[in-house]
Amino acid sequence: MAAHFTFTPTPASIPPSNVVYRLKDSPNASVNSHPLNPLDFILRAAQIYPDKVALVHPNVEYPVQYTFAVWAQRIQNLAYALIRAGVKPGDRVAVIAPNSPLIADAHHGVIAARAVLTPINTRLKPSEVAYILEHSGSSIILVDYEYTHLIPPGTRVPVIVSKDTGRADDPYETLLAEGRRFSEEKSWGGLVAEPDENAGAVLCYTSGTTGRPKGVITTLRGEYVELSLLLLTEVASTGLGSYLAAIANAFECQILPMFHAAGWTFPWSNVFAFAKQARFSLKLFSYSFLNVTTEDHAQDRKLHADMEPLPPFRRDTLLRSTYSPTRRLPQNVTAVIAGAAPTAHLIAELENIGFKPVHVYGLTSVTYGPFTRNYDQPHWENLSLEERARLMARQGQAFATALGVRVVLPPADDDKNPVLRDVPRDGKTVGEIVTRGNIVMKEYFRDPEATRKAFHGGYFRSGDLAVMHPDGTIAVVDRSKDIIISGGENASSLAIELELASHPHVLEVCAVARPHPKWGERPMAFVILHPQHANKWAGRHHEFAKDLKEHARTRLPGFACPEWVEVVPELPKTSTGKILKTELRKIVVKL
Amino acid sequence: MAAHFTFTPTPASIPPSNVVYRLKDSPNASVNSHPLNPLDFILRAAQIYPDKVALVHPNVEYPVQYTFAVWAQRIQNLAYALIRAGVKPGDRVAVIAPNSPLIADAHHGVIAARAVLTPINTRLKPSEVAYILEHSGSSIILVDYEYTHLIPPGTRVPVIVSKDTGRADDPYETLLAEGRRFSEEKSWGGLVAEPDENAGAVLCYTSGTTGRPKGVITTLRGEYVELSLLLLTEVASTGLGSYLAAIANAFECQILPMFHAAGWTFPWSNVFAFAKQARFSLKLFSYSFLNVTTEDHAQDRKLHADMEPLPPFRRDTLLRSTYSPTRRLPQNVTAVIAGAAPTAHLIAELENIGFKPVHVYGLTSVTYGPFTRNYDQPHWENLSLEERARLMARQGQAFATALGVRVVLPPADDDKNPVLRDVPRDGKTVGEIVTRGNIVMKEYFRDPEATRKAFHGGYFRSGDLAVMHPDGTIAVVDRSKDIIISGGENASSLAIELELASHPHVLEVCAVARPHPKWGERPMAFVILHPQHANKWAGRHHEFAKDLKEHARTRLPGFACPEWVEVVPELPKTSTGKILKTELRKIVVKL
Repeated sequence: MAAHFTFTPTPASIPPSNVVYRLKDSPNASVNSHPLNPLDFILRAAQIYPDKVALVHPNVEYPVQYTFAVWAQRIQNLAYALIRAGVKPGDRVAVIAPNSPLIADAHHGVIAARAVLTPINTRLKPSEVAYILEHSGSSIILVDYEYTHLIPPGTRVPVIVSKDTGRADDPYETLLAEGRRFSEEKSWGGLVAEPDENAGAVLCYTSGTTGRPKGVITTLRGEYVELSLLLLTEVASTGLGSYLAAIANAFECQILPMFHAAGWTFPWSNVFAFAKQARFSLKLFSYSFLNVTTEDHAQDRKLHADMEPLPPFRRDTLLRSTYSPTRRLPQNVTAVIAGAAPTAHLIAELENIGFKPVHVYGLTSVTYGPFTRNYDQPHWENLSLEERARLMARQGQAFATALGVRVVLPPADDDKNPVLRDVPRDGKTVGEIVTRGNIVMKEYFRDPEATRKAFHGGYFRSGDLAVMHPDGTIAVVDRSKDIIISGGENASSLAIELELASHPHVLEVCAVARPHPKWGERPMAFVILHPQHANKWAGRHHEFAKDLKEHARTRLPGFACPEWVEVVPELPKTSTGKILKTELRKIVVKL
Repeated sequence: MAAHFTFTPTPASIPPSNVVYRLKDSPNASVNSHPLNPLDFILRAAQIYPDKVALVHPNVEYPVQYTFAVWAQRIQNLAYALIRAGVKPGDRVAVIAPNSPLIADAHHGVIAARAVLTPINTRLKPSEVAYILEHSGSSIILVDYEYTHLIPPGTRVPVIVSKDTGRADDPYETLLAEGRRFSEEKSWGGLVAEPDENAGAVLCYTSGTTGRPKGVITTLRGEYVELSLLLLTEVASTGLGSYLAAIANAFECQILPMFHAAGWTFPWSNVFAFAKQARFSLKLFSYSFLNVTTEDHAQDRKLHADMEPLPPFRRDTLLRSTYSPTRRLPQNVTAVIAGAAPTAHLIAELENIGFKPVHVYGLTSVTYGPFTRNYDQPHWENLSLEERARLMARQGQAFATALGVRVVLPPADDDKNPVLRDVPRDGKTVGEIVTRGNIVMKEYFRDPEATRKAFHGGYFRSGDLAVMHPDGTIAVVDRSKDIIISGGENASSLAIELELASHPHVLEVCAVARPHPKWGERPMAFVILHPQHANKWAGRHHEFAKDLKEHARTRLPGFACPEWVEVVPELPKTSTGKILKTELRKIVVKL
């Protein structure tokens, strides 16, 4: 779809013919070491493949398309425009935008100005955005025209609105043109290379299910290390030729929002791989879209279809079409699944239409996106789907970019010399997931106390509870606060959900503790029925509940079986797709 | 061929069932940063895929085969054995071996002992080896039984001979078993992680065509950065699905000697990708071998067929079989060509049998192997083979791991504040190739004066002369000492060789200056005839010379046309395959 429209970049977007893609050396430059910085990749892509299409923004009123040379010039213009606006090294630049050229530019242009990119989730409420703008101390705001309502009235810092047109009269384009003029054609040589690879790169805010969002700041070194290995780590070991070939060859369809943990470093790694990126909005996501997209581009390509941020109705749209064997995708596509373990259902359904599911786990921007992966083993081929699903549900083992993952008995908060002791590898003993190394965030921004707590014991403390299996794979049991204490026993809500999801008519399920006069707490399950089976139970939800409880009794200990089952049309979720158990708990206490 | 023999590793090679793949933290360990170290990858491969075959050594009297778990234990044993032998952090450990488990182990085990690997070229003379052992101050020597004659008599440091059997009575296996005992089963936790990512990793010696070999020391950071990006850099942008898929999937056939620039980091990157490595000796290399090898392994695989170190008769063996269209390789294979630009002939012949040639350029271990690549452009598809070859002969542009490549007017040696000025991008003005960044060596070992000279101007000074084309690609013109000054004009011997090689009957050609009474110097060409055409000219070399000179006159200015042409059966080369022009010059001055 990308090549079928005509578009002319603004005059300010056209690089001079004698452009040299080299930054000004920092004063401490050395011959045999240079600071790791993901900015390098746009410079070399423009140098090596100036005329290759780099960025496509289709399916909007004003579709645009930029080559690497043009895109690089726009990025440079943005850097100069920010410097002209007074942005200093280390300053924060806020961006509020869906996947679009604006936020794609910002991933490179902001760090070219040696500032810190602060991407803000477009699904937040104005009050949350106001808090983030205040806390981050952002000195300028770049915003997409569809999200100007998120800007607090009376904001004192400059606000630049992109109308997403790519035309010279667009305020964002005016900003870029001003940057170009301000550069006085000093080009890249007028911008100083950041001398410190541990300088801040991105400041993302958690969409915490409780409390104020926390600012997570990452480093240039971390982003560079993570991106250079992420693709290989995630993928090389799986033998997914199509995924790799596609990264190589061309077409990266970015569905994961770029504001989400800086798009897991894909905004830079796509450039590293000289890929053509298409910035699609999540709104467009559907199976037929996938189908069209994959058919519409070169032979080898890949869709990074991240399932996490899909609201349930999108996932439903996708899966509804799975039952026609004629509707397979034209080639295998890797579905990177995060946020929740894939169920046997989901795996079967994905495989049925040509997806290869890969399960990853991470703590959003705190770990630069995922940092563990479920590495499938050769002998799994001989297992039943359900056994395979049980193994695939584990969070697996650490990426090469992490120094490892451990499950430990957490020390007391006031322990001055904490020693982390590993739980035995028995698949039973519950401990806390911890990790460390280059892909742990620099710190919680302006929150030394939270940083100290998070790093207590010399590791990043995830707060997620897990077991370690004999083969060294970890399996998340629960967040500590989600455990259901039923008759004195600890019931893992995740384990309950996994077993309930194995019922063939369940699409999504969530279990929370509900007060019980005799047992203290008992599990209550909220279920979304699979659309293919929903009709069967219409008006008979009570019978479905009975059926599901019977299913549970064959698979769970009595204390973990749901006492109550409620069929619902949807589940409350955060803007990034996490189920808000806090909301469900508020409901159950009133029942 | 690998799986068809039975082999049992020694008892000392079997890891305990409760092995934990984690080193002891260095004292300055931090939560959110860890020193880059390619040792990490064997630990995680053994953790994630313990039972996967990691290392195969076939086609020898005692074939061996190790899984990642077993190999990791052997590496650990080696580290402890070295420590037991008194090896301290920073000490050098010499290894003299062809591609075999010994040198594969050493790439990991030596750095696990925090020592510096010193691999020695097996093709050197005993006097050269003696010099390297002396200069490096190696504190222990590990040597393959076929190369014990290279050890100077009376060597005072311990020498361990591997009989390459993998059996318990092999002296090398005895060493490993002693290491295991010495460890007292403290396993990986008894080895301290190297805290400094800039610590020395490998000390390779140049096989300089003049003078004493120089010791080139690299860093752990450099090896890690280079390896993590090398594969993608070399390959991702080319869309070579088969190459990538193969890295992912399994089978790395290592023909490049591991002693050559530490195998261009492939000894570690193969492990990173969980690949099965086969350690083949160069001696075995032939087309039928390639064919068998590629047919013998999983669907997706790749051969890293490095053409550089192939002696001419090997290359000949390979190419002799090109003319039967039925003898194509069973799938496309990437041929990474270094050391000399591929000629149109070679490209055609390689493509004809299913090789995809990729031309890279580097300065051996000084740049961790290649650091530029010829990035093929989409529009080349429409060019004639000869035009394409002319473009592919350029050395291209910098890897992502380098900070760039420049062609500059070199400052005077005594310039205290040297400023490097780029030559114009005109494809004509000759300057010196310089580069800098993470993949420039740490220094010349124990030679601060040579280091100072090599880094003069803030860049690594390659000594290679080149032009910069308008598209930013570099093309090597010559080593400064190889320029032929003919009638006052500077004739590039490389340019002459390139044009002469376009004659369809030329397999290899070398041009050097020969004194001339009138013109000062004139080019003399030494030619190896293509085996398919050699018969035609048998006994008629004089007529061939005439034919070639006519060919030259249509393509070269008069001063660059060879005045003399001599057909030879072979050319004098260094142990790494570089033509020894010094030897040819010695011949011509006597003519």
